[in-house]
Amino acid sequence: MHADIPAPSHPGHVAFVGAGPGDPDLLTIRALRALESADVVIHDRLVTPEILGLVNRNAVLIDAGKEGFGPSAAQTDINALIVQHARSGAQVVRLKGGDPTVFGRLDEEIDAVDAAGLGWHVVPGITAASASVAAIGQSLTKRGRNAAVRFLTGHDMKGFADHDWRTLARPGEVAAIYMGKKSARFIQGRLIMHGADRATPVTVIENASRPDQRILATTLDRLPADLARANVTGPALTFLGLAPRAAEAQLAHSRQELA
Amino acid sequence: MHADIPAPSHPGHVAFVGAGPGDPDLLTIRALRALESADVVIHDRLVTPEILGLVNRNAVLIDAGKEGFGPSAAQTDINALIVQHARSGAQVVRLKGGDPTVFGRLDEEIDAVDAAGLGWHVVPGITAASASVAAIGQSLTKRGRNAAVRFLTGHDMKGFADHDWRTLARPGEVAAIYMGKKSARFIQGRLIMHGADRATPVTVIENASRPDQRILATTLDRLPADLARANVTGPALTFLGLAPRAAEAQLAHSRQELA
Repeated sequence: MHADIPAPSHPGHVAFVGAGPGDPDLLTIRALRALESADVVIHDRLVTPEILGLVNRNAVLIDAGKEGFGPSAAQTDINALIVQHARSGAQVVRLKGGDPTVFGRLDEEIDAVDAAGLGWHVVPGITAASASVAAIGQSLTKRGRNAAVRFLTGHDMKGFADHDWRTLARPGEVAAIYMGKKSARFIQGRLIMHGADRATPVTVIENASRPDQRILATTLDRLPADLARANVTGPALTFLGLAPRAAEAQLAHSRQELA
Repeated sequence: MHADIPAPSHPGHVAFVGAGPGDPDLLTIRALRALESADVVIHDRLVTPEILGLVNRNAVLIDAGKEGFGPSAAQTDINALIVQHARSGAQVVRLKGGDPTVFGRLDEEIDAVDAAGLGWHVVPGITAASASVAAIGQSLTKRGRNAAVRFLTGHDMKGFADHDWRTLARPGEVAAIYMGKKSARFIQGRLIMHGADRATPVTVIENASRPDQRILATTLDRLPADLARANVTGPALTFLGLAPRAAEAQLAHSRQELA
């Protein structure tokens, strides 16, 4: 670093950009342009190398997950890092997996950037639920089945997250559960306690949209056991109330035969 | 048409592609490629001219909204159109506004394509909720406020859609309401009946991501009147429980002053 760096001639700016689920082709065109023109890219640990490969070669690339940032104490450090780079006049991209507005802790970072008097904008991304449901050939909503869908998290900062188990337990409900691996047994227990059918279809999609994508079709009854057996280690999304399309057709067929 | 067209040498295929909220820069790279390589593009009425301008110039462009397709009887006609073109060997793009898996009636079209023995895949898109929440600088979920978000529709084929009004009426709930303009008074009535605070923030985003985007910040109490006054004619998304970021900061400030 030079000792007498002049004040930045143009103001810094922060773009909070959704990287989507992992496949670089699922970036938006705006996100791609932001990566190509950034001075600094501060990215989540889960952003794939294929996407990081699209970043402008002169940009500073910072992994916010590899620099001693733990799961919770980290946030203030990340905020400071974003502000520090933008203050120096840099065009900063804060690159988050999926959509930054879905379980992305976006507000805390915007607060910090706002407090520093810096400009920012948000570039939405494809969230894991969209990519996952596309992979199993289903819809998040369907006429005659569900006129509403919920995105919820398996755990929050206080531990396992509490939800409207009673309404989630009803037939036809569809929910996309983020960070639901560790809380699978908790969620199963709460739902069954509230009257959910043990045969309710549940699908876990690991590494949605990536070459190593895996689809685990199970039921509420078998979810924890099947999840343990499958050894799911990558990012995963759990759908309550959805089976992969082929499995669903087969299920409908076998029900007809039994009827 | 030539009388003795040979059987197609390569099989037809249908890509169900999300066009996103309207801004062509919010297409995914995969969606853009699909438009550039399609033989036939069958699109919704609401897909913007800017996006249609990206379609390969040799492709047949069919507006599924302009050919006498009404809101409900239309579906079988659209299904037939998709199948007819794919059967002839064409690479068909079925282009839907937003994300095809969110209130997109995707299943009915996949059923038809499946029944015809044709291949298909789904390319997810940015749904209106993501683009809209980005426009107001908020998140769909936020630590300490909501660990779940709902996407729901104001009306379904039976009329105004019924929902879990009791849980939606609670403080801190966030819901993205699709097709909520006509049902605004109905939704307001149900929520207030179930104990919702009349001062609950409500934001309507019209034409999200487009040059003519408009943001209407109101409350549950004033929603129907403000909506009528604003003369919202474009596609709009209604957020229950979210105010635009600047308005929220001001609200928090005025509450502090009053306290």
